[in-house]
Amino acid sequence: MSIAIIAPGRNTVELVEHIHNMDPGIEVSVYPNHKLDASIAIVWNQPEGLLTEFKNLELVSSLGAGVEHICREELAEQIKVSRIVDPDLSNSMVKYINLVVLHYQKNFQLYLDNNKINQWKPFEKPERELKIGILGAGEMGQEVAISLYNLEFEVLTYSNTKKEITGVQSYSSSDLTISDFVSGVNCLICLLPLTPKTENILNFGLFQSLPKSSILINVARGGHLVEEDLFKAIESGYISDACLDVFREEPLSASHPFWNHENILITPHIASITNQKNAAAIVLENFKRLKNNQSLLFEVDRQKGY
Amino acid sequence: MSIAIIAPGRNTVELVEHIHNMDPGIEVSVYPNHKLDASIAIVWNQPEGLLTEFKNLELVSSLGAGVEHICREELAEQIKVSRIVDPDLSNSMVKYINLVVLHYQKNFQLYLDNNKINQWKPFEKPERELKIGILGAGEMGQEVAISLYNLEFEVLTYSNTKKEITGVQSYSSSDLTISDFVSGVNCLICLLPLTPKTENILNFGLFQSLPKSSILINVARGGHLVEEDLFKAIESGYISDACLDVFREEPLSASHPFWNHENILITPHIASITNQKNAAAIVLENFKRLKNNQSLLFEVDRQKGY
Repeated sequence: MSIAIIAPGRNTVELVEHIHNMDPGIEVSVYPNHKLDASIAIVWNQPEGLLTEFKNLELVSSLGAGVEHICREELAEQIKVSRIVDPDLSNSMVKYINLVVLHYQKNFQLYLDNNKINQWKPFEKPERELKIGILGAGEMGQEVAISLYNLEFEVLTYSNTKKEITGVQSYSSSDLTISDFVSGVNCLICLLPLTPKTENILNFGLFQSLPKSSILINVARGGHLVEEDLFKAIESGYISDACLDVFREEPLSASHPFWNHENILITPHIASITNQKNAAAIVLENFKRLKNNQSLLFEVDRQKGY
Repeated sequence: MSIAIIAPGRNTVELVEHIHNMDPGIEVSVYPNHKLDASIAIVWNQPEGLLTEFKNLELVSSLGAGVEHICREELAEQIKVSRIVDPDLSNSMVKYINLVVLHYQKNFQLYLDNNKINQWKPFEKPERELKIGILGAGEMGQEVAISLYNLEFEVLTYSNTKKEITGVQSYSSSDLTISDFVSGVNCLICLLPLTPKTENILNFGLFQSLPKSSILINVARGGHLVEEDLFKAIESGYISDACLDVFREEPLSASHPFWNHENILITPHIASITNQKNAAAIVLENFKRLKNNQSLLFEVDRQKGY
């Protein structure tokens, strides 16, 4: 058996080690020295079209939770696609979102700034009353929702299929429109998969439905956000603060106007981290299941894109 | 019935309103125009000795969770002392601690700094593996412990009497010494009541038991911390980061060396906020109970000091 890892710009040394520790008999090749006879490809931001050069592919696994980079490829129908659903990945996302939400809720930047000028100013701005709306209620969306509910925030989710999450108000697209949904929240978190239907979903039309001075947090994909519309929404007061962890081009160019903008906080795609050991275990388990004609872990519906 | 509120420097307008809304018949006077015939005093940082001028006192309630400012007074034995245990107070503390812990765990300051210089640097420093020790496991300590456990942190508590908290390792002073306790954690949170036994408990002797590069968070009272010992612990590497919300003198003087110190983060006593409406309700309920010879809500053992 042969695995090819195609993840340009990513350090995959640890992943290779974990695969070899779990099964020393497996041959692993890594882009750009990947072997085209591999039956499994583990991919992240692979060069477009590269996957079609493989002749024996049976399984393509994303190295993360998202699969838009796989679903856009023209793969033979019998090739299975899966993704990583990793408790560590979800937990690091949960921690990131809790941090960012609390940073805004407590106006923490004001205190950080006041540290530099020896200034004691309690509650210069009142703490914010947040009503948090989460777009996307997959594994991560649900865990994030529960964690924020545990902190006694009011939390609402919006997804294609309605979910049952204790303490959380869950809506689906058949309950109400996305505009109606966002009109009822003042902190909007995007955790959607990127599909043709969700691309550009964070646009000025949607932002206009938010109450004034809302918070936007995008931890899904850069392709969800229409960048110029964020500036428009800030200028017209719908959005007071945006925290972005994902971008159309990564790394974000140093000349991009998002940088150093007083209403925009940038983090360099660090919200969640795939645990390489867990990823290796999931891919190997899936290959075993494939051989035994069993249903895969975290298989992706290529039509739906998630 | 007459209530005197003695809380110099605090805005108590809202508290007075809530008391009047709940019972319009009650006379409320506020320091420095307080009436000395009041039977209830609600106090916060009252001038020392002032309480002994009251002749009809039956109940002294703290305006917050701490009561060290009451227990230091020489009050007649029959005067009851109570404090505010308010779900909103605990929740704002929970939010604050979660924010600060995550801020350090994710090295968030680095990302905030990189925003200002257009720099994309993921994981310049690896995220921290935190083992969190909480000194004090009263209502707040327990809620904080649970909230951090919910985020999948390893959490230990240390208190006089051992508590049962699901998922949390709870120790008492009869299980192990405080030095042994802190040697097993690298993020120490002080939530102790201030009593003669806990004053100056955060001292160099204790800090030396911490693993190198530990985090200290003090949200209890300034009197717990020996200020010069914090500098010593930072210089000798035991503490890499300290976040302080409470100080011996508040407001902290603009010339204090804590300010603008790269290893110390100051917040101006904003970790938890008493909800004035809840405080009013608790005090009035306690007065009713006192009249009916019922046991009080959140009564304080004046000997123990909590």
